Amino acid sequence: MGDLLVGIDIGGTKIATSAADVAGNVIARTRRPTGGSGDPRQDVGALVRDVRKVLAEAGGTVSDLACVGISVPGPLDRTGTRLLGPPNLVGWDDVPLAAWLEEELGRPVRLENDANAAALAEWRFGAGQGFQDLVYLTMSTGVGAGLILDGRLHRGFGRGAGEVGHARVCWDDDAELCGCGARGCLEAYVGGASWTRRLAERMSSPDEATPEAVVAAARRGDPVALEEMDRFNRYLARGIVNLGFTLAPQAVILGTIAAAAGEELCLGPIRALVRRDLWSVLAEGLAILPASLGDELPDRAGLGVALEALEVS
Amino acid sequence: MGDLLVGIDIGGTKIATSAADVAGNVIARTRRPTGGSGDPRQDVGALVRDVRKVLAEAGGTVSDLACVGISVPGPLDRTGTRLLGPPNLVGWDDVPLAAWLEEELGRPVRLENDANAAALAEWRFGAGQGFQDLVYLTMSTGVGAGLILDGRLHRGFGRGAGEVGHARVCWDDDAELCGCGARGCLEAYVGGASWTRRLAERMSSPDEATPEAVVAAARRGDPVALEEMDRFNRYLARGIVNLGFTLAPQAVILGTIAAAAGEELCLGPIRALVRRDLWSVLAEGLAILPASLGDELPDRAGLGVALEALEVS
Repeated sequence: MGDLLVGIDIGGTKIATSAADVAGNVIARTRRPTGGSGDPRQDVGALVRDVRKVLAEAGGTVSDLACVGISVPGPLDRTGTRLLGPPNLVGWDDVPLAAWLEEELGRPVRLENDANAAALAEWRFGAGQGFQDLVYLTMSTGVGAGLILDGRLHRGFGRGAGEVGHARVCWDDDAELCGCGARGCLEAYVGGASWTRRLAERMSSPDEATPEAVVAAARRGDPVALEEMDRFNRYLARGIVNLGFTLAPQAVILGTIAAAAGEELCLGPIRALVRRDLWSVLAEGLAILPASLGDELPDRAGLGVALEALEVS
Repeated sequence: MGDLLVGIDIGGTKIATSAADVAGNVIARTRRPTGGSGDPRQDVGALVRDVRKVLAEAGGTVSDLACVGISVPGPLDRTGTRLLGPPNLVGWDDVPLAAWLEEELGRPVRLENDANAAALAEWRFGAGQGFQDLVYLTMSTGVGAGLILDGRLHRGFGRGAGEVGHARVCWDDDAELCGCGARGCLEAYVGGASWTRRLAERMSSPDEATPEAVVAAARRGDPVALEEMDRFNRYLARGIVNLGFTLAPQAVILGTIAAAAGEELCLGPIRALVRRDLWSVLAEGLAILPASLGDELPDRAGLGVALEALEVS
């Protein structure tokens, strides 16, 4: 077996590829726009060139490669080897990505959705280090979870676990409408896309109608922005309370929007809300933390998947 | 290592002790009232006599014993070896039950709360056989869950997982008050104790104010009873929907009240409600089943714990 790992993060805008040793220390990396030629075979050829490039920069070749881990933006099939219609990759529909890459590279290739990959990355390299039971919440355009339970990624039936963004945090008939068509989903309240739609109606200019702008405005003390942060925190805390009673995790790690909003506006208030509603025996054992990898996440997400594949195989 | 297992179920009214082979086939059993002498040491002495008695009836002695598994009604400490104030055992408060029994028997003793033990028993011997991911819901006086995830019991931090009865299914200010002091908990709607309190106000006579009586009245077509069953099903389905999005289990197994209410009044309507609210990709993979052990559960609960202890050790 080789002693290099390659991680690939197929993001909404960029593809990041990195090579690391089997402990996950990054040795070389490359990034390029996601784009897509319209021909998945040709796009996979470009991924193979990325892999060869970072391996060469790390002083190796494919013969030094132990395995490849990939964080993918869209849903996977039940076997976890085919990519079903990811956003921003034109012409990719039901692509057997793992098989095609394995043909080209002759090495095992493991795929995970971005929430699972980020959970593995934060667990190995970031805020989740040392925990046996943690929930990572993406908190980006949508809300997804990666669940590490008893020191293993929990994928559930058909790899369907972690759709926590669609667990309900409000059951009223007039609950917020979610992009999935249902009402009251966590994502309908704290997902970036839903929140942006709401802000377009609430804020006075389009520039202010983004989660980033609301966080900035709340920092300046803008009352509408503070009200919006308060609403965000209340609904997110509801989701965390239900996760706490169900799974008793040691950590809930919050990604993008919540991590950017920081302690005073978001994490502090959420901890207080969770302590109010979750039994103290559970709340005392639960750390609510911001994701810590930040800009490094794309380099680490695929590597987290590769490391997990190494250990489980 | 011996080739007999002993399971003990310390129930609210009865203590059931059974001996089985290492495949879990019951060979001998005994039951007696729970009672309690007021002196935990003396009560543990009685448990030891029960163990010796079923071993003798199974044609063995303590030297043939591989391990003992116990289903306990109350909370355990974080190490899972001490019993903290179980109901119906006078004078039992922070009793090191595992250590005391191990001293007497010289064999490993494993404790689990009743929800975890029932989940293990239904998984090994009942409706959960063959599933890798299942949630068992007790549906008795209170509502607790045992989670089998990726073929292992998930205990969570401090053994706190599975308090699904206190995940919220309603977040309104006037949501139903739970015995735990919070509002909107699943248990406040579908737990036997809460439901009985509500029925005392709704039903015309005290005889009709129990879950059993409501099920019987609903079978006869009583309109208030049918309304009550409908309410029970709607709130239970909410809890199952959130579990489905979070864990993607292959099965949710419903205990006492739901199992007794049966297909037409309870399981059928709940399946329809869950299919309405859970994504089809998740709902298609999810079996919602009644617990199948029934009166055998006390003989099997401790044995499920013992079998799990054998396999994990």
